[in-house]
Amino acid sequence: MKKPSTPKGTRDFLPSTLRKRNYIFSSIRRVFEKYGYDAIETPAMEHVHTLLGKYGEEGDRLIFKILKRGDKLQQALSKSEESLLAEEALRYDLTVPFARFVVQHQNDLSFPFRRYQIQPVWRADRPQRGRYREFYQCDADVIGTDSLRCEVEFVQIFDEVFTALGLPVSIRINNRKLLSALATYIGNPERIIPLTVSIDKLDKMSLDAVLADLSGQGFSEAACRKLREVFALLGKKDGGEMLLDEVDTLLGHIPEARKGVEELKYIFERVGDLGMASSKLQFDISLARGLNYYTGAIFEVVPLTQMQVGSVCGGGRYDDLTGIFGMPGMSGVGISFGADRIYDLLEAEGAFSEVAGTGTTLLFVNFGESEADHCQHLLKELRMVGTCAELYPDSAKLKKQFKYADDKNIPLVALIGEEEIKSGVVKLKQMSSGEQHEVKESDLSEFVRNFAPNPANHVERSH
Amino acid sequence: MKKPSTPKGTRDFLPSTLRKRNYIFSSIRRVFEKYGYDAIETPAMEHVHTLLGKYGEEGDRLIFKILKRGDKLQQALSKSEESLLAEEALRYDLTVPFARFVVQHQNDLSFPFRRYQIQPVWRADRPQRGRYREFYQCDADVIGTDSLRCEVEFVQIFDEVFTALGLPVSIRINNRKLLSALATYIGNPERIIPLTVSIDKLDKMSLDAVLADLSGQGFSEAACRKLREVFALLGKKDGGEMLLDEVDTLLGHIPEARKGVEELKYIFERVGDLGMASSKLQFDISLARGLNYYTGAIFEVVPLTQMQVGSVCGGGRYDDLTGIFGMPGMSGVGISFGADRIYDLLEAEGAFSEVAGTGTTLLFVNFGESEADHCQHLLKELRMVGTCAELYPDSAKLKKQFKYADDKNIPLVALIGEEEIKSGVVKLKQMSSGEQHEVKESDLSEFVRNFAPNPANHVERSH
Repeated sequence: MKKPSTPKGTRDFLPSTLRKRNYIFSSIRRVFEKYGYDAIETPAMEHVHTLLGKYGEEGDRLIFKILKRGDKLQQALSKSEESLLAEEALRYDLTVPFARFVVQHQNDLSFPFRRYQIQPVWRADRPQRGRYREFYQCDADVIGTDSLRCEVEFVQIFDEVFTALGLPVSIRINNRKLLSALATYIGNPERIIPLTVSIDKLDKMSLDAVLADLSGQGFSEAACRKLREVFALLGKKDGGEMLLDEVDTLLGHIPEARKGVEELKYIFERVGDLGMASSKLQFDISLARGLNYYTGAIFEVVPLTQMQVGSVCGGGRYDDLTGIFGMPGMSGVGISFGADRIYDLLEAEGAFSEVAGTGTTLLFVNFGESEADHCQHLLKELRMVGTCAELYPDSAKLKKQFKYADDKNIPLVALIGEEEIKSGVVKLKQMSSGEQHEVKESDLSEFVRNFAPNPANHVERSH
Repeated sequence: MKKPSTPKGTRDFLPSTLRKRNYIFSSIRRVFEKYGYDAIETPAMEHVHTLLGKYGEEGDRLIFKILKRGDKLQQALSKSEESLLAEEALRYDLTVPFARFVVQHQNDLSFPFRRYQIQPVWRADRPQRGRYREFYQCDADVIGTDSLRCEVEFVQIFDEVFTALGLPVSIRINNRKLLSALATYIGNPERIIPLTVSIDKLDKMSLDAVLADLSGQGFSEAACRKLREVFALLGKKDGGEMLLDEVDTLLGHIPEARKGVEELKYIFERVGDLGMASSKLQFDISLARGLNYYTGAIFEVVPLTQMQVGSVCGGGRYDDLTGIFGMPGMSGVGISFGADRIYDLLEAEGAFSEVAGTGTTLLFVNFGESEADHCQHLLKELRMVGTCAELYPDSAKLKKQFKYADDKNIPLVALIGEEEIKSGVVKLKQMSSGEQHEVKESDLSEFVRNFAPNPANHVERSH
């Protein structure tokens, strides 16, 4: 018999890991909801024609398709043509299904429509460290408004989420209009895409290397010289808002640059006015994120931690997400959190909150039938006030029952034998310290509540 | 361009529906956690060989398979053999993946292992009212113990969940050992399966029709006569615990019947002792649920409501779930909630709690840039204390902004113009009644908190 396993690039989540993951998701979810974002869900499968052609050639190859069944499959096989074998496919991201959703349900939604969506996506990528074939995306979008207040609120959302998670971050911001202006400035307005793809690498490569790369792609010497000037002035990642004036001086004669600077200033002013709890907002003209559908603000969030994991969030403003499904001119802003990277980071920094690791608070040792019957009454009372508690189901050896509590990371164990029942007390052992307590049965519920982490967290940690 | 749609038998969930669904899931989840059950997740895909042959021939046909890609697909196509086209498939239920999970991770789990799992499954069934190709299952299992206390606790769990949801239910219970004894009693011990399949229909068909059916299958006249006697005595669905003594009188000379009666009495005694909040536990010897892996208790939960939807939960004790993956002799009990049916029922009964339908509590009307700037500060304070609130992002016509609040079911709207800013007050309009309030800015947060449904619910309704 084959040793049981999951398919390549997919994972099982055991309780302790899942608890921590759900702690991340619920931290994000809670902030989304406070800002008026509503959850939606779309099916795992979409029509193949909904997905194909939306992610480039490479993306098309990585889409998981669902095999037809029965007669339909036999017909397809007889024609031996690959494209006939599947009508449905697993979603590749949450953005295209969201666009499809908005167009399909446009008459049932109220615009501006704010939605968030936390669901798995599937990509037939070669699995490697930190890259999986099934992983969760965690997106929020507001669509149907061009108000820059949406951008301001997304900065607040980033700050609030990462403050809640205890991770200080740098929120990098740019504007696609500045990238367009830059392409115009160096005399290649039509080559904005290769230009931005290259300068997006400035956080991994030196300016010289990037310019050599551009030169190799046929950008003129004059163009490269101009770029060198711009980045000599603006390339300082930590320059922040003040750099905007320099951009204005340098590129302000180009109308798109003007507009881009104004938009960024609007955001910086309001964020400055409202204040941030633990994050920094930083202007970065090299930020491009290679996504061509962005038309305004571009975001990227980078943790200010020892461990370098790259960005943990991204997003931006788009003008025509739903055009592909026949509903043009809907402007919106979207962001996406990378839960797997945030998980690795919190784990590496030891930054998971204590509650993320706790399930059951109290285990009753099982000393036999009549003792167990007694415990079930106490259990009932504890659960009525929301405490998570269990009775070991069998009267196994004490050592085994304690090992169970230990393995399951249960902080309190209750020992109730004949003596305790007679005197109406409960003997409690604190697993971490070995400390013993004796409390009256009538005080048990309050003792456990005060002992346990804040009971509200019991709700929060569930996802 | 094709009108955008989801694949046949799959659904999008819009915010208001999803909120109600998540209210059901979180009600169930909270009870599972109070009883020490931990969440796990398994991937959407399993190896084809993990799933095939586990659900019968019909089940095999309904499994969604994932098409191979690239060279592997070309090779498979050249052989034109169906079984070579897919290596992975979408999970068909949560039970087989759970069995695979337990075997694969046996060294990392603490037994008895209590897990719950709320995830979608996929079946290529013909879609019809209430039957979908993608739907959520909501399962809890405890594995690695034969203690009947597990059965007792599952009865408590049923009671607690449906009490929380406001649905009175009848919890039907039987024991597979009684069904075996019945087959022995009528002289056909080897034909227990067709026998139970037939008598399982007694809630939809008359006794005469069932006996005619059995007779048609070759059961002897004597066998049918004996069955008629048994059901004349025991067929009363509402007979409850007292019927157990009659079973004992009638079948008690068969050792399996003895054992079955003892097990059921153990459960009835303890449930009676602990009491139930709103449910009834009822013995029903005709209950079989057609699942051959049950070896002890069999459960089915039927709502005591006007609307007839059949059962909303089922489950039972099994002795060898993990044997198929090479780990024999693990006894356990599992139950499963049917979320779609519970949803339809709560909707039909108007029994969704108020909080299930509420997202944002307060909308600030946008009167222009400076007023909006002012509102963002108030918003920040409200969100800091956990209130879900929004500002309409554009200074659109008042009518449009109110329509948005109405569509989104936002109960409170704040109107803050120049006058209000000067005098430091907030004008509030209650959407349901039209009632107006004027509160000081410094009192806003408390006013909204007292107005809104219990703020704890804001956490609860998120899933």
